[in-house]
Amino acid sequence: MSTNKIQQFLSKETLETPFLVVDLDIVAKNYLALSKQLAGIKIFYAVKANPATPILEVLRDLGSNFDTASIYEIQKCLKLGIEPQRLSFGHTVKKEIDIRTAFDFGIRYFAFDSIFELEKLSRAAPNSFVFCRFLTPNDGAEWPLTDKFGCNSELAVDLLCKAVDLGLSPIGVSFHVGSQQRNPSNWGIALDQANKIFDATAKRGLTLSYLNLGGGFPSQYRGPVCKLEPHTNAIKNGMKNYFGELVDQTVVEPGRFIVGDAGLIQSEVVLISQKSAEEQKRWVYLDIGKFGGLPEVLDEAIKYKIRTPHDGKLVGPVIIAGPTCDEVDILYDKTGYELPIELSIGDRVEILSAGAYSASYSSVGFNGFPPLKEYYI
Amino acid sequence: MSTNKIQQFLSKETLETPFLVVDLDIVAKNYLALSKQLAGIKIFYAVKANPATPILEVLRDLGSNFDTASIYEIQKCLKLGIEPQRLSFGHTVKKEIDIRTAFDFGIRYFAFDSIFELEKLSRAAPNSFVFCRFLTPNDGAEWPLTDKFGCNSELAVDLLCKAVDLGLSPIGVSFHVGSQQRNPSNWGIALDQANKIFDATAKRGLTLSYLNLGGGFPSQYRGPVCKLEPHTNAIKNGMKNYFGELVDQTVVEPGRFIVGDAGLIQSEVVLISQKSAEEQKRWVYLDIGKFGGLPEVLDEAIKYKIRTPHDGKLVGPVIIAGPTCDEVDILYDKTGYELPIELSIGDRVEILSAGAYSASYSSVGFNGFPPLKEYYI
Repeated sequence: MSTNKIQQFLSKETLETPFLVVDLDIVAKNYLALSKQLAGIKIFYAVKANPATPILEVLRDLGSNFDTASIYEIQKCLKLGIEPQRLSFGHTVKKEIDIRTAFDFGIRYFAFDSIFELEKLSRAAPNSFVFCRFLTPNDGAEWPLTDKFGCNSELAVDLLCKAVDLGLSPIGVSFHVGSQQRNPSNWGIALDQANKIFDATAKRGLTLSYLNLGGGFPSQYRGPVCKLEPHTNAIKNGMKNYFGELVDQTVVEPGRFIVGDAGLIQSEVVLISQKSAEEQKRWVYLDIGKFGGLPEVLDEAIKYKIRTPHDGKLVGPVIIAGPTCDEVDILYDKTGYELPIELSIGDRVEILSAGAYSASYSSVGFNGFPPLKEYYI
Repeated sequence: MSTNKIQQFLSKETLETPFLVVDLDIVAKNYLALSKQLAGIKIFYAVKANPATPILEVLRDLGSNFDTASIYEIQKCLKLGIEPQRLSFGHTVKKEIDIRTAFDFGIRYFAFDSIFELEKLSRAAPNSFVFCRFLTPNDGAEWPLTDKFGCNSELAVDLLCKAVDLGLSPIGVSFHVGSQQRNPSNWGIALDQANKIFDATAKRGLTLSYLNLGGGFPSQYRGPVCKLEPHTNAIKNGMKNYFGELVDQTVVEPGRFIVGDAGLIQSEVVLISQKSAEEQKRWVYLDIGKFGGLPEVLDEAIKYKIRTPHDGKLVGPVIIAGPTCDEVDILYDKTGYELPIELSIGDRVEILSAGAYSASYSSVGFNGFPPLKEYYI
């Protein structure tokens, strides 16, 4: 994905690579498209996907809500004039002091998935609205999901009921079908689970009214085009099948979908080499890698589209590596990338759909390289 | 590894976690120990392992030389008053503009492993001393080595001879037996290869006089204690077997060995949880993880020793995870770590031997978390 605005920006001047450039119009467009397709569902932008001030401002002005992963993200949003009522603290693992600080700021929506987190919340955020994250299948997600967050459904029911005794206001559940999810059928599975949790707590006298569907909406990387509609349709069908209608508060937390396709990273080819006189496969070293703002190439999970000045011409197999002295700083080896034979040292290439989960991961200075530069236009 | 000085520092005041604390006396001690065991061999500290100013100052004052991975590291060393004669630019992948800048600063030692890099060097650093990195086996290294750097021996010979035609002064070779290497026998294999390259270029009229043994000397992580002597003995024996004596300029580039055991990271337990009522394995969430300064837990490669306030008491199996919302931010799952049953939220734990390859990798602010704090004492 590129845009006319980005193309003009790139052609206007030769900026020092590597850098990320994001078209804020696309951020707005993606937000509005999702709002339209999921009418009645509240959007909480996942700040962690890209916490840059211009992005938060655009979404603030469009009326978005914001899901935050740390007290630092909360402070940043508040400083930008976003009211605490528009923020949730959706991380299930929080220091008690951070919960207390958030509560003092007026934050009232908190996630949990364990008894100890509930106990922290009961002490530091009394009477707050709390929701339990449960584990759900995530097959088809390109960025690996683990069991790091969430608990099983039975425990979720117990914890929600327990929350009442602890002086909290348990309101519902959250889940995550997996980041960069290509398989829309997971939404139905998760909604079925959620509905069963709603039923189970109701039998124990607790009526739930909050359903947080998390994120997972895809960006355009290599492979088949990912459309939004199969996901939003799966959500709408799932809601109808399992809940009959929208529950009182239905929420999504898109991050990647809002910002991923809005930006690209321009990088320079530093070296092209072979390891022996006979070898055909070229090593292409870029000035950006795993530790400079592309962490999602870990295990070659996210497969970015790469644009070169020689696209359309004859290609050959390559291993693509980053600029640091770290041996593991390799972007793609096994995936089978091919790049034009004419690609040369000094050429500028673009890593497309790189607006999410990039710049904020840059190392402070591994190998002395400065963090990724960012432009928001 | 901890030291009295670090213990006093930790007991004196309660600093906000997470942070790295490094005992500079240990940095000096490690440098002097290696110097003593490798008399006649020049030490070039691998700045990338930990580029903190206090470390560079200690090593500067002890007379160390410095191997650098970028023009930024070079500039930092020069600013600290380290003469350009004491610096090498050992990265085989450099932008031509950075080579030129380094050359203008007076740097004269450059690594290469490809024809295009040689061509850059010939244009930007004429007459400089250049050495070719060749590929050598690295079985036994805990931090994975790939083929990212180095070429095969035949190509090395060709490139070294070619360098003469390009107006450069080819002086020798470099290699790397693998970072955190537990297998000392690799040194002999590499020295055998190096000797064959020396012989082959001599037959073509080029006498080499520089032998760069790289790094690989280990720190004390989990598993058997790693001693330095088996490595230095293997080097001395290899030199005797293959070269008869030290070649004119013999060089090592230790990084991890100098700073790894000199520091530890103090972290706080943020949450302990289970995913179901039945599960025995606990999830222990720390306030440091993969993106906050522990990149070497990728694929659970480097297995740090972890100290808790309850050591010696009954332990149980754990999965250890980092503080961010990223699902892959897990330190250890498959390795089979066990931690005391009594471990509690709010406890401070220490990640030992964490002085190398930690703070400089911290993300600038993923999830809003600030970079790892550092104290050098």
